[in-house]
Amino acid sequence: MNYLTLFPNLLLTIQDSTSATTQDIENAVNAINGDLGMLWMLLSGVLVFFMQAGFTLVETGMTRSKNAANIAMKNLLDICVGSITYWLVGYSLMYGDTSNGWFFWSGLMQGEGADLFFQTMFAATAATIVSGAIAGRTKYSTYAIFSIVMTALIYPIAGGWQWQGYGWLTELGFIDFAGSSIVHSVGGWAALVAAFMVGPRIGKFVDGKVIPIPGHNQILATLGVFILWLGWFGFNGGSQLAWGGDDAIGASNVVLITNLAAAAGGIGALVTTWIWYGKPNLPQTLNGALAGLVSITAGCGNMSDIGALFAGLIGGVIVVFSIEFIEKKLKIDDAIGAASVHGVAGAWGTLVIGLWGIDGDTGIGLFNGGGFSQLGAQAIGVVAYAVWSVVLSFIVLKILKSTMGLRVTKEEEEVGLDLSEHGEIAYPGKRNRG
Amino acid sequence: MNYLTLFPNLLLTIQDSTSATTQDIENAVNAINGDLGMLWMLLSGVLVFFMQAGFTLVETGMTRSKNAANIAMKNLLDICVGSITYWLVGYSLMYGDTSNGWFFWSGLMQGEGADLFFQTMFAATAATIVSGAIAGRTKYSTYAIFSIVMTALIYPIAGGWQWQGYGWLTELGFIDFAGSSIVHSVGGWAALVAAFMVGPRIGKFVDGKVIPIPGHNQILATLGVFILWLGWFGFNGGSQLAWGGDDAIGASNVVLITNLAAAAGGIGALVTTWIWYGKPNLPQTLNGALAGLVSITAGCGNMSDIGALFAGLIGGVIVVFSIEFIEKKLKIDDAIGAASVHGVAGAWGTLVIGLWGIDGDTGIGLFNGGGFSQLGAQAIGVVAYAVWSVVLSFIVLKILKSTMGLRVTKEEEEVGLDLSEHGEIAYPGKRNRG
Amino acid sequence: MNYLTLFPNLLLTIQDSTSATTQDIENAVNAINGDLGMLWMLLSGVLVFFMQAGFTLVETGMTRSKNAANIAMKNLLDICVGSITYWLVGYSLMYGDTSNGWFFWSGLMQGEGADLFFQTMFAATAATIVSGAIAGRTKYSTYAIFSIVMTALIYPIAGGWQWQGYGWLTELGFIDFAGSSIVHSVGGWAALVAAFMVGPRIGKFVDGKVIPIPGHNQILATLGVFILWLGWFGFNGGSQLAWGGDDAIGASNVVLITNLAAAAGGIGALVTTWIWYGKPNLPQTLNGALAGLVSITAGCGNMSDIGALFAGLIGGVIVVFSIEFIEKKLKIDDAIGAASVHGVAGAWGTLVIGLWGIDGDTGIGLFNGGGFSQLGAQAIGVVAYAVWSVVLSFIVLKILKSTMGLRVTKEEEEVGLDLSEHGEIAYPGKRNRG
Repeated sequence: MNYLTLFPNLLLTIQDSTSATTQDIENAVNAINGDLGMLWMLLSGVLVFFMQAGFTLVETGMTRSKNAANIAMKNLLDICVGSITYWLVGYSLMYGDTSNGWFFWSGLMQGEGADLFFQTMFAATAATIVSGAIAGRTKYSTYAIFSIVMTALIYPIAGGWQWQGYGWLTELGFIDFAGSSIVHSVGGWAALVAAFMVGPRIGKFVDGKVIPIPGHNQILATLGVFILWLGWFGFNGGSQLAWGGDDAIGASNVVLITNLAAAAGGIGALVTTWIWYGKPNLPQTLNGALAGLVSITAGCGNMSDIGALFAGLIGGVIVVFSIEFIEKKLKIDDAIGAASVHGVAGAWGTLVIGLWGIDGDTGIGLFNGGGFSQLGAQAIGVVAYAVWSVVLSFIVLKILKSTMGLRVTKEEEEVGLDLSEHGEIAYPGKRNRG
Repeated sequence: MNYLTLFPNLLLTIQDSTSATTQDIENAVNAINGDLGMLWMLLSGVLVFFMQAGFTLVETGMTRSKNAANIAMKNLLDICVGSITYWLVGYSLMYGDTSNGWFFWSGLMQGEGADLFFQTMFAATAATIVSGAIAGRTKYSTYAIFSIVMTALIYPIAGGWQWQGYGWLTELGFIDFAGSSIVHSVGGWAALVAAFMVGPRIGKFVDGKVIPIPGHNQILATLGVFILWLGWFGFNGGSQLAWGGDDAIGASNVVLITNLAAAAGGIGALVTTWIWYGKPNLPQTLNGALAGLVSITAGCGNMSDIGALFAGLIGGVIVVFSIEFIEKKLKIDDAIGAASVHGVAGAWGTLVIGLWGIDGDTGIGLFNGGGFSQLGAQAIGVVAYAVWSVVLSFIVLKILKSTMGLRVTKEEEEVGLDLSEHGEIAYPGKRNRG
Repeated sequence: MNYLTLFPNLLLTIQDSTSATTQDIENAVNAINGDLGMLWMLLSGVLVFFMQAGFTLVETGMTRSKNAANIAMKNLLDICVGSITYWLVGYSLMYGDTSNGWFFWSGLMQGEGADLFFQTMFAATAATIVSGAIAGRTKYSTYAIFSIVMTALIYPIAGGWQWQGYGWLTELGFIDFAGSSIVHSVGGWAALVAAFMVGPRIGKFVDGKVIPIPGHNQILATLGVFILWLGWFGFNGGSQLAWGGDDAIGASNVVLITNLAAAAGGIGALVTTWIWYGKPNLPQTLNGALAGLVSITAGCGNMSDIGALFAGLIGGVIVVFSIEFIEKKLKIDDAIGAASVHGVAGAWGTLVIGLWGIDGDTGIGLFNGGGFSQLGAQAIGVVAYAVWSVVLSFIVLKILKSTMGLRVTKEEEEVGLDLSEHGEIAYPGKRNRG
């Protein structure tokens, strides 16, 4: 009798028609985790999109009302232009997915929709950081060109160094989970260069003295910071790029410590101004919370809760001094402190990983991890992104300056960009209140 | 020996006590996909709810401050009334679920909560589109009745033609994924009829000339558009009605191309006004982004990324001319351009599926797909929803005109609806600033 | 021959190497449901976070512009301080997770991130309710201390009575699904005590007459209410604490009936003011919608749709009378009606479960459920939270009054807290409009 051959047949029958293997379960779980990851990235992308509204309100509220509509138009331009250019060339350029041709991404049916959507919002963020710094005196047409170059070239190429998965910074061991350097510093240093090259607003520096030009609506700015804080949960959390199993726990922790760092950043700036100015200052507290967020953006996957708290706290203190330094020592008129919030805090957030960052899996500190210096790798990344952003921005703006010009005329600036660049004002006010 | 009878016993034992079949896995996966679908629809509904805030800000910002509180009250009314009437009668009427009786939906325990919540937000959207067009002169009590009729009858009956699953437009092959016609055109044409019947605001048309009445706060309007854009990801994405497997990829693509169309719509209007007016115009760019969104609402499940881009771009161009046409040629005072943004762009978004729409599964173009004309089906749907909305709105408003009256008195209009209809003003301003 | 021993071997082989058991599927499903629950709680926490922006706008909009920056600073403080104190001591105190030591929660790697994040937002909410009531005259430094005590001690200890899972109110059969009493009443009664102890704003009560002090921006207040309403979907829905199977249906229903109650609350207040004041009133309608939300917060897991509608409707009516009563009879100056919206409606929302609440599983009414009186249990809970909040707030504020002082000077109040406490104003206005 041939029992041995009978049993294999039996097995085969069970598996083919009715019985399930553990591999079947694993396949099903993997498929579901893929769907969960897509859901998380899409929802995160939706939150990051909303940051555009936050930037608009912060920039508008922290500058004068005569330029408010212009700022809204610049932020609208960033998301409109960024959505198209990043889809058209940026995504391919950054992630090297050139299988469908280099200058055109057309793989929608391959299921990359959620990822492209999420990454698009990052490109738009990098661009929009610049708009606030140069508020109140920059030509709209010139800004439009700069926004295109930023989202199509400057950001995607630099982003690929790390997030492509096999770029030179990745090989170096550089860590930037959600983009303290890749997004925020690149945007922040470009903002600094742009603010320098466009020059200060009329009346900002008079006879060597710095004249404060307060924004016109601190409540809009506050709402903007709350919206940015909200969106940052998607910005950092979504950078887990997955949900399911360890990724669900990981992304949850990312969101938790992102909130802790933001809170600590706010406290840091609040207390600093209370001591230094004598009174707790609202605009600086707002900048402090944002700096806290930028400070944890690189390390949110490699930081304990306490580590995140101190990263944010120190970021919130640094930003107060940085804003004063850039304004009073460098005499650069960064209208909303974008270079400090995004550039300086971004550099700090990248470096701190080398100080008290931990390995996400083992929890072991990264400082002095054997022969390899994490701090060194972080420093190289910080410098690389700073150099890239400064040099590229400088070249592009230099070309724009000698062709289209960067700045509106003195008369246009004084009347306000709303009227001179858009033929309207943001708050028609009494004129139509009757 | 009886091996053959032994084996079936063995099989039975395995299945009953310990072993799993592929059907077991499929059942588990289906249950999870059901839960995922519920999560996606609920979250999408939450996003669509937020659109009410967006409409409030757009309508308020684009009109005068003396009517701002009145607009807020109308938008609050829409969501309050719509939530109750659609739950009470609208949902049953639209989806024909009359198993629990016709005029009362009480099937909460059957797990339809997420769907009812999602659909409720659509009904409220259809109603709220009307409120902006007739801003500044309409009686609040009259508007309240109209809002009830809109959410309880006009929208649900028309919606059932297509979204019930076996309505006459569905049978015809008509496509309207998320409601360019069903929600936006129905709202937009009702807005046009209402604006016509209520008549223009005092001072809008003087001696045959059109007098611009600019809104009082373009920044609130800008924030409103960002909120609407955000909510639209739920509006269109949630209309996939499921998440899991192909639906996850499908819904992600819907969100991606919705964003592309919005961006293109903004660019379309921005460039159009730059060329035509000489300067890029903020309110029109805002309307362009909204028109881009409306233009992809019907086709977001049947459009390539490039197709979506052009649908939105053209929508953004059309809306600028449409607003001018309705104001200057038809001499109808649509205070915020609602008929153009929702009605005209909604019709365009419905028709474009017949031009360069594709089959969602095969990717094959729908234009000239054999003997069947998709464009013809789309045109029939566009006309059907236009006729329904115009006729029903006209009848309801005619009855209201001859009973309660549509319009406040000249004195009430001049002092502003905030004071005359609500006994308060939106911005007490200096009076309580001291 | 030994067939019987052969079969067990066969079974073992199938299970070990290839075949799956139903237990394997159940384990996989449980793991996925755990991930889904984490996703739902995290997203809900993100929505609840956004409520801080809503509170800021409601409180700012409903008070005078000279104190707007101060209110923003108080709300920022609440989320910053609350995020840190609740993480540091509150969470351990409330949920008794003292395994890692009493005064320091450091279990991030155990996967409690989503839960801690979600619960943190509740603590911040309880604190922020107080800030509006005492707007316009309270010292910032004093408020900072109170905010710390509230999030670190008052709220967590009281919350533990019920939400710890085995607290004394839980044992009693008390029901408070999402915190009508635990969060809102605790905050609301503390607000009442604080408003009483700080005293009325200058000019509020003159010669026994009540002078209205209208807020400066009803549109910001309206946006704030929409944001709160939005966030409440997470507040109530997330309190399901899970997603998957019955929990998905349960949480969906929670969101649906939360919306119904909010809508009914808005209608309740709108109609009440229309009848009583002669005109439908915006600020009261806003308060009505909020009261509707508070009224369903305890019962959203134990209420039919109709039950929720009436709970909200009555809440919306009550709040109008309560605000008048506290202002005109008690002569307590609660600047935005926080004690009525959160305290009184919170008590009502807790009690109504004993009237027409139902068992979530069976659907059977809870009123007179055998010998046990649900209404009695609810009443005990209402009183317990009221007494706790009143007594603790009184003690803390009494100590603060006799040490730091509660109130700014008359001159500081008249110039506005923005200038006197923060050295800046929210709307520099004309001064920098040129």
